[in-house]
Amino acid sequence: MVKIIVDAMGGDNAPQAIVEGCINAVEQEKDFNILLVGKESQINKILKDKKYTGTRIKVYNAEEVISNHDEPSKVVKQKKNSSMVVAFNLLKNGYGDLVISCGSTGAILTCSVMILKRLKGINRPALGTLIPTKTGNALLLDSGLNAECKPINYVQFAIMGTYYMRHLLGIKHPKVGLVNIGTEAEKGTETVKEAYELLRESEITFIGNVEGNDVIGGSADIVVCDGFTGNVMLKLLEGTASFFVGELKNIFFKNITTKLSALLVKEGIKSFKAKIDSDSLGGAPVLGIDGLVIKSHGNSNAKTIENVVIKGFNMAKSGFMNDLKKEFEKRRFS
Amino acid sequence: MVKIIVDAMGGDNAPQAIVEGCINAVEQEKDFNILLVGKESQINKILKDKKYTGTRIKVYNAEEVISNHDEPSKVVKQKKNSSMVVAFNLLKNGYGDLVISCGSTGAILTCSVMILKRLKGINRPALGTLIPTKTGNALLLDSGLNAECKPINYVQFAIMGTYYMRHLLGIKHPKVGLVNIGTEAEKGTETVKEAYELLRESEITFIGNVEGNDVIGGSADIVVCDGFTGNVMLKLLEGTASFFVGELKNIFFKNITTKLSALLVKEGIKSFKAKIDSDSLGGAPVLGIDGLVIKSHGNSNAKTIENVVIKGFNMAKSGFMNDLKKEFEKRRFS
Repeated sequence: MVKIIVDAMGGDNAPQAIVEGCINAVEQEKDFNILLVGKESQINKILKDKKYTGTRIKVYNAEEVISNHDEPSKVVKQKKNSSMVVAFNLLKNGYGDLVISCGSTGAILTCSVMILKRLKGINRPALGTLIPTKTGNALLLDSGLNAECKPINYVQFAIMGTYYMRHLLGIKHPKVGLVNIGTEAEKGTETVKEAYELLRESEITFIGNVEGNDVIGGSADIVVCDGFTGNVMLKLLEGTASFFVGELKNIFFKNITTKLSALLVKEGIKSFKAKIDSDSLGGAPVLGIDGLVIKSHGNSNAKTIENVVIKGFNMAKSGFMNDLKKEFEKRRFS
Repeated sequence: MVKIIVDAMGGDNAPQAIVEGCINAVEQEKDFNILLVGKESQINKILKDKKYTGTRIKVYNAEEVISNHDEPSKVVKQKKNSSMVVAFNLLKNGYGDLVISCGSTGAILTCSVMILKRLKGINRPALGTLIPTKTGNALLLDSGLNAECKPINYVQFAIMGTYYMRHLLGIKHPKVGLVNIGTEAEKGTETVKEAYELLRESEITFIGNVEGNDVIGGSADIVVCDGFTGNVMLKLLEGTASFFVGELKNIFFKNITTKLSALLVKEGIKSFKAKIDSDSLGGAPVLGIDGLVIKSHGNSNAKTIENVVIKGFNMAKSGFMNDLKKEFEKRRFS
């Protein structure tokens, strides 16, 4: 039985959306239990309101909450009783198989590195985010943890991504692309050029440089870059999706004729929105630490949480963590 | 009378699309002439095919063509008779007011710096590109010339952008945002943090950091970043627009009902496509050099060229170049 530890207090819609999402998730799939960490009274009230009477969701009290105003590097020492720190310590001490949190990225990284520690052989953990492409999805990493990277970090990202896509999406030899400003090997910054050479020499399936349009075109299953570039790309995609969906709404809600038109393509629009919906893709694994951690979007709603819990469940039972650990113990990057 | 020098041989659709675009442009607006530089026989044949008999388009022969395989840094010396090098020399020697080329970005930069020279007081020229936003447009610069930048470059980009938006779009105090991975001042790389401080102290209208979604949200009129980030953003936007438009087509062309739906929202879709169409926004000025240069997209079609010529005409008569020159002579960055 997989045990999922959920930080009930992180993110804009906590704890309401988080508790609801967990209830929906346990109704959808068997074989896992949830430990909700946070203010017991608040969580119990929501469980009661939602008439949850099952035994698969348990609550673990933690009175403090980490906010975006807390200095990420200090939370582990200064907010010991916060839902996030308590959740990570529970994972560390074997009370569960993974942690899910919608809290601040910086705080999640600090807890990951300070409480769980880095995997042996990994210099920098990375945040991996699935983004929609023309042909399906691609894993963008690092999507926000390390503003600056060294060439070797890109190779480690590529290997972690390869294991992730293999175990979670069943792609045996995922194609890895390096984000760059041209397809030729000599393009880009010095760091990126060196990363190119290291990736070319590594045993992953490296397809070379990918530009912004190639990323969306779906030419790579895994897209590696520094966390600055990755975060800008991710947020730009979110902004563009919201812009386009807003424009579509304006087009369709203009008058009675256009509203009729909307009815005729309702199904198509619905599946398109699902395709680009960060709620359904939501949930980015923190890769490279000794434990399974998923960061969900700060504005996650109940639907997002439900999806992320199911995703985390699949991740926990996939054997991904063990294989990744073995891989890096074998190679020991300096 | 403004005189526009057009490199007729650069880009994927040269010279056909370029000559056609120029013919359409002179039919649309008065007060400028065009000098087409490239293989005379080919250009004349297109002019004849298109039954152009006017006197506003002249041809200047240049037998060589710069391709993407030419080493950009060597074109000025090794391809003296190429359409691009000849066009830049014509501008340098006073035979026109600006140059337009769809050729390789690297070669355009080399010609700009080596033939026209940098403006006094500018360390690095930058490529500015207008991108669509929720509220209109924003100038993204640098969108591809300098993979790595120093903090002072960002300030120069911001000032050049301010003059550009003021003269070309009539925005008196354009808002400048710094691309970053968080809105707080202490976010990002060391370079970006220093750039933040310099921008804050400068006299431009600095609104602070902008994330990818803010850029599309339209919170800034000018978005400054290094050329790596800018180019990745630009290409990502192009890729996303093409992805979304493709998805819309699939939705509407599915069956007879959805095709009917498409008819009902035809006008809305058309104006939406125009909004996000790089053809109509096409044409990025190379800012920071002693001369007006517009780089148009490598895959520019006749419509793009027509728009870019009109844009260049407006730029030439706006007084932008003189004012920018005075500004930087005054301040002299070290």
